Amino acid sequence: MSKVLDEPLLIDGLEYCKWNRDLLKNAHRGGLNAIHVTVVYWENTEESFIKIQEWHKLISENKDLILNAKTSSQILEAKKNKKIAIIFGFQNSAPIANDIFLVEKFFNKGVRFMQLTYNNQTPLGGGCFESKDSGVSRFGEAVIEEMNRLGMIIDLSHAGKQTCLDAIKFSKKPVAISHANPKFFHDSLRNVDDEVLKALKNRDGFIGLSLYPYHLKNLGDCKIEDFCEMIKQLINLIGIDNIGIGSDLCINWPNEVVMWMRNGRWTKKTDYGESKDHNPSWPKLPNWYSKPEDLNNLLYSMMKNGIKEKDAIKIVGINWFNFMQKHF
Amino acid sequence: MSKVLDEPLLIDGLEYCKWNRDLLKNAHRGGLNAIHVTVVYWENTEESFIKIQEWHKLISENKDLILNAKTSSQILEAKKNKKIAIIFGFQNSAPIANDIFLVEKFFNKGVRFMQLTYNNQTPLGGGCFESKDSGVSRFGEAVIEEMNRLGMIIDLSHAGKQTCLDAIKFSKKPVAISHANPKFFHDSLRNVDDEVLKALKNRDGFIGLSLYPYHLKNLGDCKIEDFCEMIKQLINLIGIDNIGIGSDLCINWPNEVVMWMRNGRWTKKTDYGESKDHNPSWPKLPNWYSKPEDLNNLLYSMMKNGIKEKDAIKIVGINWFNFMQKHF
Repeated sequence: MSKVLDEPLLIDGLEYCKWNRDLLKNAHRGGLNAIHVTVVYWENTEESFIKIQEWHKLISENKDLILNAKTSSQILEAKKNKKIAIIFGFQNSAPIANDIFLVEKFFNKGVRFMQLTYNNQTPLGGGCFESKDSGVSRFGEAVIEEMNRLGMIIDLSHAGKQTCLDAIKFSKKPVAISHANPKFFHDSLRNVDDEVLKALKNRDGFIGLSLYPYHLKNLGDCKIEDFCEMIKQLINLIGIDNIGIGSDLCINWPNEVVMWMRNGRWTKKTDYGESKDHNPSWPKLPNWYSKPEDLNNLLYSMMKNGIKEKDAIKIVGINWFNFMQKHF
Repeated sequence: MSKVLDEPLLIDGLEYCKWNRDLLKNAHRGGLNAIHVTVVYWENTEESFIKIQEWHKLISENKDLILNAKTSSQILEAKKNKKIAIIFGFQNSAPIANDIFLVEKFFNKGVRFMQLTYNNQTPLGGGCFESKDSGVSRFGEAVIEEMNRLGMIIDLSHAGKQTCLDAIKFSKKPVAISHANPKFFHDSLRNVDDEVLKALKNRDGFIGLSLYPYHLKNLGDCKIEDFCEMIKQLINLIGIDNIGIGSDLCINWPNEVVMWMRNGRWTKKTDYGESKDHNPSWPKLPNWYSKPEDLNNLLYSMMKNGIKEKDAIKIVGINWFNFMQKHF
């Protein structure tokens, strides 16, 4: 481990915030070293290229604080230079539509994570909100091969169970579920059952644990003690090395954006996702995880709640780093 | 029935030809009254709008021969004015990507048929070449409702079996399989089994019989006698009123185009579709159906082969007309 890692490495494996200079400064002060940021959900090819351009503009305007990481070594470089490495990801495969050649075009623009699906079915596979999950399709297999070749991480967050199992098996490189929790902790459509967790473990796959309220026991009232208890149980089930945090922190956005996340342009009705009371607002966050820099606080909370220091340090960053290193 | 129908109405429920003035003249001389033409397969939204523009240019340049029909009454108008009514259709849902609002935009441009899938899975449903068929997805249901509302025909050609069954059941208006044959005639991935045919019959759904060699008994060597025998058997199974011809005639194209139809941009490998000998060329057509005007010849061949005159007349046009009238 390089000397720059004397301070714990802090990597958030998924955030979707409306970033501005103030928010970046806070994350920077909070010691974040790398963040996998969501670029798009439902956006088409052209819109996705535009969103990437907007990200490059933000990075250029804040280059004292952040850089765009296309390789894992740039995460170390960022740490050394006291910057946050920003890693681009898509929470859907909408940007590539049905065009395999677009995978490389987006890779060349810095995209290093792509979900096969976002709740709904795509040409690649089934979403976790579908009543019937196709598993990975013909095009899905072609795209997985291409992502393996390039070094783009296959992200199975928001995928259906069969699609998860198929992709874990089919991919030659280990896959990630960047932001979800085990169903044994909270039984939601987005969380992952033991069969998928074990399949993941058998193929060296990764899970980033989520702080998004709908993925938490007691939602926004989730206690840190319960969250840490879940982590200990998960370590027993799949080992320590492939667990990280993918906070799914979504802050600074107006309420329209949570409705965009749920509805995109796929329905004329209103879909409320996993909000059982049809809440059109952002859900209430746990008071112990409401800002990017809470990743650092979580490190100490984990240690206070019976997770060994070396394990807690791995979970907040080193594990993600090691996993990313296998890809880019 | 209007007086303009004294001559048998000739409607081809699907053709994909590289049209030019000579070909249009031949079809015109051959007595064709309406053709559902394929505008795109794998093209994205923007490309699809461009293809429609190109069609409008062709129509405008040949307005003595053809017109664009957006309503079934324009088919009668075309017949009266001795023109061919051109009805636009998509053989895939790629043009609408994941955007429900695009359905109406394309409808307004004249699109009156859309397939949910083309061989492969889409966000709407499963394709007939997939090993696992999801059936109709959440977005698929939303799109079917929208197509029902607008009067765009749901075309299940190239869909998987479960997707056919789901769509037939879910759609409030009868659906079509514009170009396929019964599996009892020739067991190919693209043809339709008895369960789907019966489900179609129960909901007043339509099937256009195909002359594409991979859908025919003995492929391009298929005998007209065998084809007519199949029609008689099908009439016994589902009745006479919902059977037409969707010739799937693809002529005047270079071989690259058959490979585009199979591969689009979804794979870097080469997919040969249903060509068992990996033929990268257009398949050999039956000598009795190699040009648009053979629809008229088929009418007489059917009568010669034991299909009643009034049934044969229905099959070559009236049935399609009556079905289209339910939609637009």
